[in-house]
Amino acid sequence: MSAVSPVLDRLDKNFDQSLERLFGLLAIKSISTDPDYAADCRKAAEWLVAELKLIGFDASLRDTPGHPMVVAHHDGPAGAPHLLFYGHYDVQPVDPIELWESDPFAPAVKEIGPGHKVITGRGAADDKGQLMTFVEACRAWKQVHGGLPCRITILFEGEEESGSPSLKPFLEANADELKADFALVCDTGMWDRDTPSICVSLRGLVGEEITVTAADRDLHSGLYGGAAANPIRVLAKILADIHDADGHVTIPGFYDGVEETPSQILQSWLSLGETAETFLGPIGLSIPSGEKGRSVLELTWARPTAEFNGIIGGYTGKGFKTVIAAQASAKVSFRLVHKQDPEKIRAAFQAFARQRVPADCSVEFHPHGGSPAIQLSYDSPFLAKAKQALSDEWPKPAVITGGGGSIPVVGDFQTYLGMESLLVGFGLDDDRIHSPNEKYEMSSFHKGQRSWARILEALTR
Amino acid sequence: MSAVSPVLDRLDKNFDQSLERLFGLLAIKSISTDPDYAADCRKAAEWLVAELKLIGFDASLRDTPGHPMVVAHHDGPAGAPHLLFYGHYDVQPVDPIELWESDPFAPAVKEIGPGHKVITGRGAADDKGQLMTFVEACRAWKQVHGGLPCRITILFEGEEESGSPSLKPFLEANADELKADFALVCDTGMWDRDTPSICVSLRGLVGEEITVTAADRDLHSGLYGGAAANPIRVLAKILADIHDADGHVTIPGFYDGVEETPSQILQSWLSLGETAETFLGPIGLSIPSGEKGRSVLELTWARPTAEFNGIIGGYTGKGFKTVIAAQASAKVSFRLVHKQDPEKIRAAFQAFARQRVPADCSVEFHPHGGSPAIQLSYDSPFLAKAKQALSDEWPKPAVITGGGGSIPVVGDFQTYLGMESLLVGFGLDDDRIHSPNEKYEMSSFHKGQRSWARILEALTR
Repeated sequence: MSAVSPVLDRLDKNFDQSLERLFGLLAIKSISTDPDYAADCRKAAEWLVAELKLIGFDASLRDTPGHPMVVAHHDGPAGAPHLLFYGHYDVQPVDPIELWESDPFAPAVKEIGPGHKVITGRGAADDKGQLMTFVEACRAWKQVHGGLPCRITILFEGEEESGSPSLKPFLEANADELKADFALVCDTGMWDRDTPSICVSLRGLVGEEITVTAADRDLHSGLYGGAAANPIRVLAKILADIHDADGHVTIPGFYDGVEETPSQILQSWLSLGETAETFLGPIGLSIPSGEKGRSVLELTWARPTAEFNGIIGGYTGKGFKTVIAAQASAKVSFRLVHKQDPEKIRAAFQAFARQRVPADCSVEFHPHGGSPAIQLSYDSPFLAKAKQALSDEWPKPAVITGGGGSIPVVGDFQTYLGMESLLVGFGLDDDRIHSPNEKYEMSSFHKGQRSWARILEALTR
Repeated sequence: MSAVSPVLDRLDKNFDQSLERLFGLLAIKSISTDPDYAADCRKAAEWLVAELKLIGFDASLRDTPGHPMVVAHHDGPAGAPHLLFYGHYDVQPVDPIELWESDPFAPAVKEIGPGHKVITGRGAADDKGQLMTFVEACRAWKQVHGGLPCRITILFEGEEESGSPSLKPFLEANADELKADFALVCDTGMWDRDTPSICVSLRGLVGEEITVTAADRDLHSGLYGGAAANPIRVLAKILADIHDADGHVTIPGFYDGVEETPSQILQSWLSLGETAETFLGPIGLSIPSGEKGRSVLELTWARPTAEFNGIIGGYTGKGFKTVIAAQASAKVSFRLVHKQDPEKIRAAFQAFARQRVPADCSVEFHPHGGSPAIQLSYDSPFLAKAKQALSDEWPKPAVITGGGGSIPVVGDFQTYLGMESLLVGFGLDDDRIHSPNEKYEMSSFHKGQRSWARILEALTR
């Protein structure tokens, strides 16, 4: 009998208690982007430190200028690899709160079909439920074998949803302590409910806030309309100019460093059967908004974008106000691929915007994080082992995919620790992460735990 | 001695009490556009009814489907004209409240220079201070002469700042009661602090709220960016397309009914000495935003505009959220001149917007009032008399001007009561109406009262 079989049995027996523990973590309002929830973020970190100590990790809360990190160490047998596991305990804001069917911080199990159960709550899938799959796998392994199969370092971050301002300095300052043979990052999804996935590419991200200021006060649009500059008009022009009619981004230099994806990769993606209809239909859309002539998987995995994440200006309350606002602002982000340089993109956007601001108006920018895209090597031996371990656990074999979202830590591990990452996660596309009514499949939480036990065994074989 | 001299003396003696009364009205939070303040609007109407009854008017509060009207009647000598005086007791919202130097509903007198006093508070100039100049003139005339020099009907509205939805039905239903020889409308300004003005044209207004809906939920911009339509991008494109590079509005048919202003009128406006520098400098701007090659007075008095009064979509809180919103919306308004048809403009804008909405997105419109521009006849005998009366009161002779803001009631008086209006008011361009720190000149409140006494005398001479 392999070392993993009794661990899998133990995970099955422990499952109800593991769910209770997850609920404890989900109840903590660790919204990192809003300073009002700083104490809750700290509470989540403290909760994790306590859990890891119970398992036998040497765990500690580590202060940063922002929200704290959690770092934990556990020895393994001589000669076994040293793995760094990464997750994040912070969550997205919950607005619009009125669209939630239940309190986002009162987690619950909901049966949404015959035998089909999900865990609901903010962070259930992104990323608290995911990180706990690994914690539970370690707990069960330790209970069964009295130790772990390899040396494991755990790093839990509390600022993933707000641009990870403290991560790079923390990795730099603690590189010796954190460097491992490779990293396991659990913040991605499965291909479908039965098919696990290992993600080999991730888009980078540049976030910018742009504020246009016209007059030095709000104006009556009757008295000044036709004479005074309107910052909403200026801002709308900047944003509208960013895309041409074919969905290309028009900012000069934007596509520098973007490569065409190899045709055999594009072919394998096409064979997954995803179409505009299957991808966009479930969210009520049907027409890809990006560059014409490319598949939805290529658009979201291997092409860069410009997105407008928020806009506000003037009177936005009930009724109407005939005002010309003094200011208008937008939150803009760019998803990057391949070798696009975040800071060059940021500078190019700023220059593009400045050119469109009238001489008597002003524009200011506020950066919100930046990270390059990453592309893992297709021939890593770890990749092959993990693929087999996942294929052993799930109904269908694991597939190799790309990811549209940014996980800056993977690039940072590369840059600061010289370490590649294996991206394995158990989220589903319909988990509504970042949206109201976020959920995590009960099967993801259960078989996710079992998957990690199998992966630990495979990687140390 | 003319009938007006003792009335002017009485106004001077009564002035301090008149200021106290105005403060009582300014303290009432009659924000008509926000339903949360409906009770305050009613309170302001009741306050006015009580004041008018004290003077001797047959005054009553008249319910409407929205905020109530105040109607008051007072007889005059046989053969004297019948005048309708109009003002509005509702005020604009106060946001952004943090920019007010003092509580907008705690009115105060502030000395802003040697002997230069102003009254501060929301509504001080627009329109509570203005309407009270007439009430005080009637009070003093009644006290001195025991009656009024002509038959006077007063109409105070409570929905002027929110599109006047109840006004037209009210005028129609009460046409016999309200029709007079002509109307006095006190909601405009002076040319400068020493020079009174009679306004002969007013721009009309069409208000529209546009909401673009893309996906049926908020989306993670990493998972869906590049594939899913972004409603902020769609909305920005619609708004940006409305103006060309020369400041013209590009909506087809928008300029139908717009006439070129006679050259002698343009000449007289040029002689007033207003330039882009003098007009825009005080608000921190310098470049006219409207159609190139036209003066700021022409742009604001005699040219139509498209303005964006508010915009909101996606995440607008602190920090950053990598979301693609389900919806984005904007409040858009058009200032109209001459014979532009509000409903044709509304329909043309809607068609223009619909053409720019992708087939898998939807757009909805919500109307916020509409009124055509008005243009008074230059040869009215009332105009000549009022001009002389004002010239007698103020340091400099009265001038004939246009107005950029909409006062729909003037068009409605024309349409429903067949009655022209004389537009006389004592506001100044720097009164910051609709903005934080609204004020009304103490001299406007005092000499405004005296002006009305003189005008009543002149019109009934």
